[in-house]
Amino acid sequence: MALIVQKYGGSSVATPELMKKVAKRAIAAKNEGNKVVVVLSAMKGETDKLLKLARSVTPEPNPRELDTLVSTGEQVSVALFAMTAQSLGETVKSFLGFQAGISTDDNHGKARILSADPARIATELAKGRLAVVAGFQGIDKHGDITTLGRGGSDTTAVALAVALGADVCEIHTDVDGIFTTDPNVCRDARKMEKISYEEMLELSSLGAKVMEIRSVELGMVHNLKIHVRNAHNPSPGTIICQEDESMEKTPVRGVTHSTDEARITLVNVRDRPGVAARILSVVSKAEIVVDMIIQNKSAEGDGNRTDFSFTVPSNDYDKAMELLGNVLNELEAEKILGDDNIAKISLVGAGMRNHAGVAAKMFRTLAAEGININMISTSEIKISCVIEKKYAELAVRVLHEAFRLDLPPGENGGTEDI
Amino acid sequence: MALIVQKYGGSSVATPELMKKVAKRAIAAKNEGNKVVVVLSAMKGETDKLLKLARSVTPEPNPRELDTLVSTGEQVSVALFAMTAQSLGETVKSFLGFQAGISTDDNHGKARILSADPARIATELAKGRLAVVAGFQGIDKHGDITTLGRGGSDTTAVALAVALGADVCEIHTDVDGIFTTDPNVCRDARKMEKISYEEMLELSSLGAKVMEIRSVELGMVHNLKIHVRNAHNPSPGTIICQEDESMEKTPVRGVTHSTDEARITLVNVRDRPGVAARILSVVSKAEIVVDMIIQNKSAEGDGNRTDFSFTVPSNDYDKAMELLGNVLNELEAEKILGDDNIAKISLVGAGMRNHAGVAAKMFRTLAAEGININMISTSEIKISCVIEKKYAELAVRVLHEAFRLDLPPGENGGTEDI
Repeated sequence: MALIVQKYGGSSVATPELMKKVAKRAIAAKNEGNKVVVVLSAMKGETDKLLKLARSVTPEPNPRELDTLVSTGEQVSVALFAMTAQSLGETVKSFLGFQAGISTDDNHGKARILSADPARIATELAKGRLAVVAGFQGIDKHGDITTLGRGGSDTTAVALAVALGADVCEIHTDVDGIFTTDPNVCRDARKMEKISYEEMLELSSLGAKVMEIRSVELGMVHNLKIHVRNAHNPSPGTIICQEDESMEKTPVRGVTHSTDEARITLVNVRDRPGVAARILSVVSKAEIVVDMIIQNKSAEGDGNRTDFSFTVPSNDYDKAMELLGNVLNELEAEKILGDDNIAKISLVGAGMRNHAGVAAKMFRTLAAEGININMISTSEIKISCVIEKKYAELAVRVLHEAFRLDLPPGENGGTEDI
Repeated sequence: MALIVQKYGGSSVATPELMKKVAKRAIAAKNEGNKVVVVLSAMKGETDKLLKLARSVTPEPNPRELDTLVSTGEQVSVALFAMTAQSLGETVKSFLGFQAGISTDDNHGKARILSADPARIATELAKGRLAVVAGFQGIDKHGDITTLGRGGSDTTAVALAVALGADVCEIHTDVDGIFTTDPNVCRDARKMEKISYEEMLELSSLGAKVMEIRSVELGMVHNLKIHVRNAHNPSPGTIICQEDESMEKTPVRGVTHSTDEARITLVNVRDRPGVAARILSVVSKAEIVVDMIIQNKSAEGDGNRTDFSFTVPSNDYDKAMELLGNVLNELEAEKILGDDNIAKISLVGAGMRNHAGVAAKMFRTLAAEGININMISTSEIKISCVIEKKYAELAVRVLHEAFRLDLPPGENGGTEDI
C-alpha cells in the first residue's frame, strides 16, 4: 500500500467522457490498496476562454482579479470529478487551493507556494476516501486567491505529495514519459525508465515541455519520486529520482533541440569592466530573457575590443535588436549583428561531468555532417551548440545515433566509446 | 452621503457591455458622495450552463460539489466587474462569499446565512473604494462553499446591507419596480412608490417574482429600506419599508394572479381527528407543497363525512392525484376529484385587516362578471379566490378597476368606496 498523488492535465479531463476515464483510473489505483489524491488542471481550453473573457473588458486585467477569474477553471474540474467519481460509487470530496491548505505569496499570476497544510485531505485519506484537489491555485495571507502560473498544477501535486509524505507523485499527461529525444524528429527515440532530477531540470529548461520546472526542483529538494506517465496508457512511464550508478555510467542521456531562439552579436565593443552588465541591462529592462552568453576578444582590431554574443527568445528578437541598435554609441560598439535562423542542440546527462570526451565527440559528429557550430555553452551536465536552423533535426538524429541513445543504459557501451 | 448596497441580477450583467453599464452606474452613485457596495449574480445563462454540465456527468450531482461548481458563476461576474471598473479608473476589489464573511449553515443548495462579517468590505469603504461581492454564496463551518438557492443574491445583498448598517439596499432588476398588478395583463397597472414588507411578502409568495422572499423577511426584521428599481433606468422604483399611515388608508394595494396551481378534492372523507394530517402527509412525503387548504362538511351523506380540498403546483398535480388515488381506501374517502383548469386571484393590502368590506366587494365584483368562486382563503392582509382559469385576466382587470388601483394612494377614495 502506497500513498499516491496523481496529477492529470487539462487534455486528460477535457470532456465529461475523459473525466470519467480519469476517475476510473484513480479509483482503480485506490482499489489496489493505495491512498490516492487526485490533482486536476482546468479542462482543456477553459483557461484560455477565461483569459479571453478578461481581455474582452480590459487589455490589462488586474492580476488579483484575473486570479479570481481563472481559478474557476480548476474549481469546475474538481467539482465535476467528484460528481463523476460519486456516480461510480465512490465517496469523494473536492478541495480548492485554500481548502487544501496551499498558502502562497501574493505575487498574483505567478505565486510561489509558501506552505502546504493538507489536513482536510489527510482526514479523507484516513477514512479510506479519495480526495480531489484543484491545481494551480492557492491563497495568500490576505485571504485572496492566487494562481501559480501556467503548469502550476504540477507544483500543487508535488507540494501536496511532499506535505502528505507520499510515496510517489504521478504526473499523468498525454505522452508516455520522458524520451531520449523528440520522437517526432528521431524515430529511434527511446522512453527512459529513469532520469535524475538534475537531468530533468536541464531537459525542462531546454524545451521538453513535459514537466513544470519548479515542481521538479521541489521534488529534488525533498527527494520525492515523480512518475511521468500517459493518462490513457497503463504502462509505466519515466521515474524522476535521485541519480544512481546506472545513470553515471551513461554520460549522455538525452538530446534536445530548440528553434525558438535568436542570436545577437555586438561587434567590437570597447572592452571595459562592466561592459557585459551594461549590454544586458538594456535587454533585461525590457523583461527579455537572455539564455546563452559568450564574450570573445575580437580577432581583428586592437586588443581593447571584444565581440559579445547572446541568445534571446525569437519573439523578443526584433525588440532586442531595436533597443540595442538605439544605444550602440553609448555601448561603444562598432555594429550589431543578428541571426534568427539558428537552432540550439543540447546533450544532457548527469554522468557527463566525469567525461570530458563527450564534447569532443559531439563536435566531431556534427563536423562529419558538415554542420558548423556558431556558439558553444556548457554546464556540469549539459553541452549546447548553436547551429544553422536547417540542420536542427539532422543534428538530433546523428547525435542520438552516435551516443547510441536508442539502446537502454548498460547496453549502449556507456563511456567506452568516447 | 449614504451607504448603499446595490444588487444587480444576471440579466443586468449578461454581457461585458452590460457589465460596463452597471459599473458606470455604481461609480456614478459613488461619485455622488456615497459609499457603494455592489452584489452580483452570475451572468445570465451561466448558472444553467453549469447545471447542465453537472447533469452531463450524473443525474443526481452531490449537493456539496454542485455548490462548488455553480458558485463559479458569481466568481466570474465579480472578477469581471472589478476589471471593468478598474478599466474605468476606479480601484475596486472583488470578494467571494467567504471573503465577504458570509457564514451559512451546511444545507448545500439552499443554505441559510448565519452571520455576515464584512470586515474586509468595511475596510475598502473606509478607503473610499468600491467593493464588489459575489452573491448567492457563502461558506459553512467546515470551510466548504455553499449556495443560498435561486435568487439568493438578494439575500446576500440584504444581509450585507444590514451588517454594514447601510441606508438602503437597492435591488437593480429588469423591471421598473413593484406594480399594482401585472402590466402585461392590465394596462392600467401602476408602479407603487412604496410598499410594506408584509405586502411584499404576500406578493412574492403569490408569484410576483421580483424579490426573493427570504431577503424581504430579513429586511423586515432589521427595518432595512429596500429599493427595487430598473438597472437601466435612472428613475426611482419602489421602496419596500415599514407600513405607514398612507398604506393603511388604502386597504387594497395590489392584485395578483397565478395559473400554475391545480385543485384536488377528496370527497366524503370520514371525518375523524387527524384526517387532514393523514391526507397531507401522503402529499408532503413526496415533497409536494400544498398552498390553499379547505375542509368542508359534505352537503350530502351522513354527518361523519367531509370534503377536503387543497391546491398543489400544476407540475405536481398528476403525481399527487396518483399518490392519493392509491390510498383512497386507507383514507376512507369516497372518491377523488381534480381540476387543473384553475387560477388563483389575490388582493393584497396591509390596510385590509381593518376593512372587512374588501372581501364583500371582491366577491360582488367577480359575480357581476359571472365569474364563479370555487375556493376562498384569507390571511390578515390577503384574500385569495380560486376561479376558472379562462377568467383569470378578466378578474385581474375588473378588480384593479373596482379598487381604483390605477390611482395613487389618497386619490383612489381609500376606504370610502367599500
